[in-house]
Amino acid sequence: MRKEEDFNEWYIDAVEKAGLSDKRYPVKGMNVWTAYGWKIMRLIDEFIRRELDATGHDEVCFPLLIPETEFKKEKDHIKGFDSEVYWVTHAGLNELDVRLVLRPTSETAMYPMFALWVRSHQDLPLKVYQIVNTFRYETKQTRAFMRVREIHFFESHTCHETEEDAQRQIEEDVEILDRIAARLCLPYSLLKRTDWDKFPGAHYTVGIDTVMPNGRTLQIGSVHHYRTNFSVPYGISYESEGGEHVPVHQTTYGMSERLLGAVIGVHADDAGLVLPPDIAPFQIVVIPIFSKDNAARVGEAAKALAGSLSAAGFRVKLDDRDVRPGSKFFDWEIKGVPLRLELGGRDLDGGVVTFARRDDGSKGTIGLADAPSGARLLLDSISASMLEKAKAAQASRIADAPGGEVPDDRVARIGWCGCEECGRRFEEERDLKILGTPFRPERFEGACAVCGKPANAAYAARTM
Amino acid sequence: MRKEEDFNEWYIDAVEKAGLSDKRYPVKGMNVWTAYGWKIMRLIDEFIRRELDATGHDEVCFPLLIPETEFKKEKDHIKGFDSEVYWVTHAGLNELDVRLVLRPTSETAMYPMFALWVRSHQDLPLKVYQIVNTFRYETKQTRAFMRVREIHFFESHTCHETEEDAQRQIEEDVEILDRIAARLCLPYSLLKRTDWDKFPGAHYTVGIDTVMPNGRTLQIGSVHHYRTNFSVPYGISYESEGGEHVPVHQTTYGMSERLLGAVIGVHADDAGLVLPPDIAPFQIVVIPIFSKDNAARVGEAAKALAGSLSAAGFRVKLDDRDVRPGSKFFDWEIKGVPLRLELGGRDLDGGVVTFARRDDGSKGTIGLADAPSGARLLLDSISASMLEKAKAAQASRIADAPGGEVPDDRVARIGWCGCEECGRRFEEERDLKILGTPFRPERFEGACAVCGKPANAAYAARTM
Repeated sequence: MRKEEDFNEWYIDAVEKAGLSDKRYPVKGMNVWTAYGWKIMRLIDEFIRRELDATGHDEVCFPLLIPETEFKKEKDHIKGFDSEVYWVTHAGLNELDVRLVLRPTSETAMYPMFALWVRSHQDLPLKVYQIVNTFRYETKQTRAFMRVREIHFFESHTCHETEEDAQRQIEEDVEILDRIAARLCLPYSLLKRTDWDKFPGAHYTVGIDTVMPNGRTLQIGSVHHYRTNFSVPYGISYESEGGEHVPVHQTTYGMSERLLGAVIGVHADDAGLVLPPDIAPFQIVVIPIFSKDNAARVGEAAKALAGSLSAAGFRVKLDDRDVRPGSKFFDWEIKGVPLRLELGGRDLDGGVVTFARRDDGSKGTIGLADAPSGARLLLDSISASMLEKAKAAQASRIADAPGGEVPDDRVARIGWCGCEECGRRFEEERDLKILGTPFRPERFEGACAVCGKPANAAYAARTM
Repeated sequence: MRKEEDFNEWYIDAVEKAGLSDKRYPVKGMNVWTAYGWKIMRLIDEFIRRELDATGHDEVCFPLLIPETEFKKEKDHIKGFDSEVYWVTHAGLNELDVRLVLRPTSETAMYPMFALWVRSHQDLPLKVYQIVNTFRYETKQTRAFMRVREIHFFESHTCHETEEDAQRQIEEDVEILDRIAARLCLPYSLLKRTDWDKFPGAHYTVGIDTVMPNGRTLQIGSVHHYRTNFSVPYGISYESEGGEHVPVHQTTYGMSERLLGAVIGVHADDAGLVLPPDIAPFQIVVIPIFSKDNAARVGEAAKALAGSLSAAGFRVKLDDRDVRPGSKFFDWEIKGVPLRLELGGRDLDGGVVTFARRDDGSKGTIGLADAPSGARLLLDSISASMLEKAKAAQASRIADAPGGEVPDDRVARIGWCGCEECGRRFEEERDLKILGTPFRPERFEGACAVCGKPANAAYAARTM
């Protein structure tokens, strides 16, 4: 299956061959995380945890089930989710008095509790997050990690005294994103969604998009400013010095297993996965190259090499199966291991070990005695060059198309006056989606692709 | 609230004061894990992960929702769970064709997939686990961590060629248990449950019980041998050398957040939690004791001390709030921090730091220069003595009562001939539960408490 020819088919095949998930589970769109895929996801989760802990967020865990009565308190929110939630109506042999929703996101689970937790300005900012699974009854075609019905994700929720404090939180979220994306070697763009596409109940939404090789965008996460849209109906307020109850300003931030989908889509190739070193379950595979007369010596040395690399903190696999080297290479390429170290008699004699990089296929040798520092340099170089290459590829897939004539496999930067009428007409006529306007203002000179009036930049694309 | 006087009320109070969970969530029996409680649980999870990974189990994550059709394949299983599962009947605006169950445990989610994964003896043993939440519609009174409707737990599932291989897995599970229980300073007993109390569908069940101070037992986990009871209806078989399809033998093993409930019940006291060092979010709290003229010097030294302890790998909290020391002591006692280090001017002059142990209240000093090694010794001693004390307490709550006359606040070792009729009669007449017979055979000389015939030992108790 060739990535260039049919991205969608290639993607399904890459996921399956690498053993990341099993889609034969008997509920459509709910896949089994098999061991290798789950390990990668857990490494991603660890980085998210580390970032959120370091920025003063507390990890919590809220119940999955939300009473219908709480779920319906914010009107736009329920309208936005009405057609895509799962309902628990019975328990044991009883019909429930109040139906329960499986969380599609946790605003309506958390905010009744926030109303109890926030009393005075001393309780602010309140910053919590959780890493859980969420449920959406998708009607579009499902695809592993990219569009599923049980979604692994993190969500952070914050409460602040003022709108400006909340705005600063969004800036912090963007910084966190940048560090996480760098570890995943993922380029992204930040676009303020159109009013008709923002999160149900939000004041505004910033979408985090990555461009896939077929030119379609994948939304990997989002950041929302809620102002007081939820705090008013849920009664989350603090007492000001004058004794008034002031509703808090809120933000949320979330990214899902689509991060993994994006990594596969951006980096994998026709031979299989290409994993960024920071999230590879095995960063290095050590393969002894036996010949008849040196098996014991090479075997010992390979074991010692793997041991010293593990001791240095790398995640290492020693593949000493009784199988031809070529077929081992093949297996670990499918799995996307960033660095392969081959050790044969000649390497040993020369005091070196042969390496092969998964990202660009280049080969060479490093000193056997200081293999850990050689491996460190190589892995750092792999990370850096994967990110650079991906950024260049993403840039090449974005085209300036001021009049709105967008090539099939490109994201277009168009002119848009900003009015809903022009935006919706553009989307309908071209069968494209306006992703939004740049979160960081961009210089732009041009006219609205619809009405011809003065315009700012907006991005339009087909989505995954 | 005194532990001795009213264990149940005291327990609720201890959980609430320490801020482990919030039970005001608007679905009964589903509590919010607040930050401190969730940190402890995640530390427990990490030990479980480490043990299961080290014994060759793969971590996976299966979907939450199980189709009714799969759920009903093993007859005893569905009968056992019929009255306590949650049903999803609607999604979006549609009624589902096949209703979905929220996992009460994952046999029926996993086994259709195991049937696809196991082909030959080379696929065996298959050993997987997951750490997820599970759902039971409890009708009894709920209590934080001990009896809730959304339960955080781990479950491992294994498939083997023979019954003996499966039996060896159970021995391994028991060894894992012993290491985890030691970290949590928890005594336990292993009892083979009666036939009418075993897990629905199991060949046999070994319950893992801990005795609470009120003499009632809390089941913190269980290990099951399924023989081929599930593999036959689910079609999990391997091809023997002769080409026959042989059903696998299966086991499962699970422990839940009751581990945390047991730690609280066994170790906490009237002043609050007493956490085993291995699972304490903060193992050490450093409190500077300021006086007017030494604030800067003491503050600096306390900071340096906390820094050196953190650098040595301890989880440390520096409490330099502008609050009286006595009220800091009080706060951290409620939270159960194992070791308090107080640093004042006189300590500094003497080159020491004053310690106070949370477990027994004893105080003394350690050298400031080698505080990390002093702290290590103290924390190890706290762990060891908490486990010893708890073991002694558990032993004192088990009484030999061959005739079945069981004191209210004790677990009784009785004689039981083993027949169901005697067992059920005993349970009814005494309003007690027969927990089971010792997993490791015990010497016993006595007669059945009901029929007077020759008997083996069995344990009977009231349960939490």
